[in-house]
Amino acid sequence: MTEFELIARFFERPIAPGGIVARGIGDDCALLDFGGPNQVAVTTDMLVAGRHFFADVALSDLAAAAAEPRCFFLAIALPSSDEAWLLAFSQGLLALADEHGCVLAGGDTTRTPDVAGTAGPLTINITAVGEMPRGRALTRAGARVGDDIWVSGQLGDAALALEASAGRVELAATDAVAARVRLDRPTPRVALGLALRGLATACIDISDGLIGDLGHILSRSKTGAVIEWATIPRSHLLGIQEPKIQLRCALAGGDDYELAFTAPASQRSAIDAAGRVARTPVTRVGAITDGRDLIVRDEAGKPMDTPFKAYDHFGSYEQPKP
Amino acid sequence: MTEFELIARFFERPIAPGGIVARGIGDDCALLDFGGPNQVAVTTDMLVAGRHFFADVALSDLAAAAAEPRCFFLAIALPSSDEAWLLAFSQGLLALADEHGCVLAGGDTTRTPDVAGTAGPLTINITAVGEMPRGRALTRAGARVGDDIWVSGQLGDAALALEASAGRVELAATDAVAARVRLDRPTPRVALGLALRGLATACIDISDGLIGDLGHILSRSKTGAVIEWATIPRSHLLGIQEPKIQLRCALAGGDDYELAFTAPASQRSAIDAAGRVARTPVTRVGAITDGRDLIVRDEAGKPMDTPFKAYDHFGSYEQPKP
Repeated sequence: MTEFELIARFFERPIAPGGIVARGIGDDCALLDFGGPNQVAVTTDMLVAGRHFFADVALSDLAAAAAEPRCFFLAIALPSSDEAWLLAFSQGLLALADEHGCVLAGGDTTRTPDVAGTAGPLTINITAVGEMPRGRALTRAGARVGDDIWVSGQLGDAALALEASAGRVELAATDAVAARVRLDRPTPRVALGLALRGLATACIDISDGLIGDLGHILSRSKTGAVIEWATIPRSHLLGIQEPKIQLRCALAGGDDYELAFTAPASQRSAIDAAGRVARTPVTRVGAITDGRDLIVRDEAGKPMDTPFKAYDHFGSYEQPKP
Repeated sequence: MTEFELIARFFERPIAPGGIVARGIGDDCALLDFGGPNQVAVTTDMLVAGRHFFADVALSDLAAAAAEPRCFFLAIALPSSDEAWLLAFSQGLLALADEHGCVLAGGDTTRTPDVAGTAGPLTINITAVGEMPRGRALTRAGARVGDDIWVSGQLGDAALALEASAGRVELAATDAVAARVRLDRPTPRVALGLALRGLATACIDISDGLIGDLGHILSRSKTGAVIEWATIPRSHLLGIQEPKIQLRCALAGGDDYELAFTAPASQRSAIDAAGRVARTPVTRVGAITDGRDLIVRDEAGKPMDTPFKAYDHFGSYEQPKP
């Protein structure tokens, strides 16, 4: 059972129209409508120590919905009240929030119980709230046949850092640090998300790898896609790794928190301009197609073998009995 | 450092006016204002297995703010994808949510890492969203000298169940079950909260004990209080325990999730009517006074010795060095 199957099976149910929930489970943000001039985007992320960790994740979800960050709610389960950690954490968190005009509006603190005599893991939950004018949210569902596929920034460095940590790739010390920064402190593409309002037809943040996350756009939009491998923006550092590592990191690596989005070919110069306004590189990497397949082509136009799936929090563990 | 000191020191900062946050940290709910006809109440609660556990907690926070539940966001860190547990949990959660017209609008699932070779604790975060007409939220800050103090339901059974679990009190098997139900499945007083709009001057849910939670009303309202011990509503089960246990459970016991609220004496019959409308017993237990003290008086009118403080998630653990 994957994470997505788990949610669909146990938690996802039809939402009756007429309430405040304009869009529920299944996108980067839920959309709420309280009858004001704007719609309200809400995302919630639980972060367990040792996996992803920062408020960047929540901001990235707001970015993918083209929402302007407004406020957030923080809940922490702490192994102990470690003042040095709390000081560093709260200062980093509030500085990032300030940068995006996002106010800490409430929260909860509790203590993690010990597990087998050892302090339980630090666990953090962030619920972030943003706004956008009614009907201007970007979702996963709007891609149309013929649309270009774009990505922001460069893909794969966060995954490369993980490969290096796991000892599967050897990096020079300074390179390892550079990659690690991209893993630990991704840049939420909030400004780009806002600049894409009215231009992009669908958008998602790449938290689980381009193939997997683009797959969500395809399944919600009921389309296929072709990706041109040669056009995938990669850092110099990733570009000098062996081809198999490059493919895996750039196409299946999670944690980059870049945006993948679609837009009609008629908007190419407008998208380039949006990237400049947001001071964020944007690169065209493929096109939305008829059909259901996601094909990655090499420089000769030949489909490549890319047996990558989205990162799944449960998929890699023992499967429950059917 | 208590939980409250921790929040004040590391996380609470002044909120600039003009944004969407009408009321931030320091009450049962934050209040947001998106320019629609209603204000929006948001509360977030993290629940670690073995301590409190249910969505009742979030609904109880909405009740204390007189908010009508609308939707909620669920994040779970699971030790493994245990289908039997997930089925029972999701069915119970969604049934409670349905009962209160509260829609699951989004969420997050992740896996808890192992700690010392043992599965980490199941951790759940619920962020609940409600609405009330602008300016009709109940807060902790509105109590005035001379107001009556009221509580809903009966106090202390949840704490009695904990005393019994800890072996400090002996209960007959059926009594233990009855008390345990009150601990495990408190009744969120949502209907009462709504009925108190425009009547109560301040309100809080009793999650950490009457003395501690009433203390929050007093400190926010800058008042004192006198509680008449004889009037505190107790179950028959608690009423037959020895006096020390009764005092501790009813005044300092957490987890009852009843409401404590204040209202002018002129509203007594209106409050009684609100209790009937909400099918919730309400009892007058004291009065708001000038000054800063919280005094509990015995039947002879003599101040009792009640060295109880609010339950604190950190207070009972090793204090950090100053």
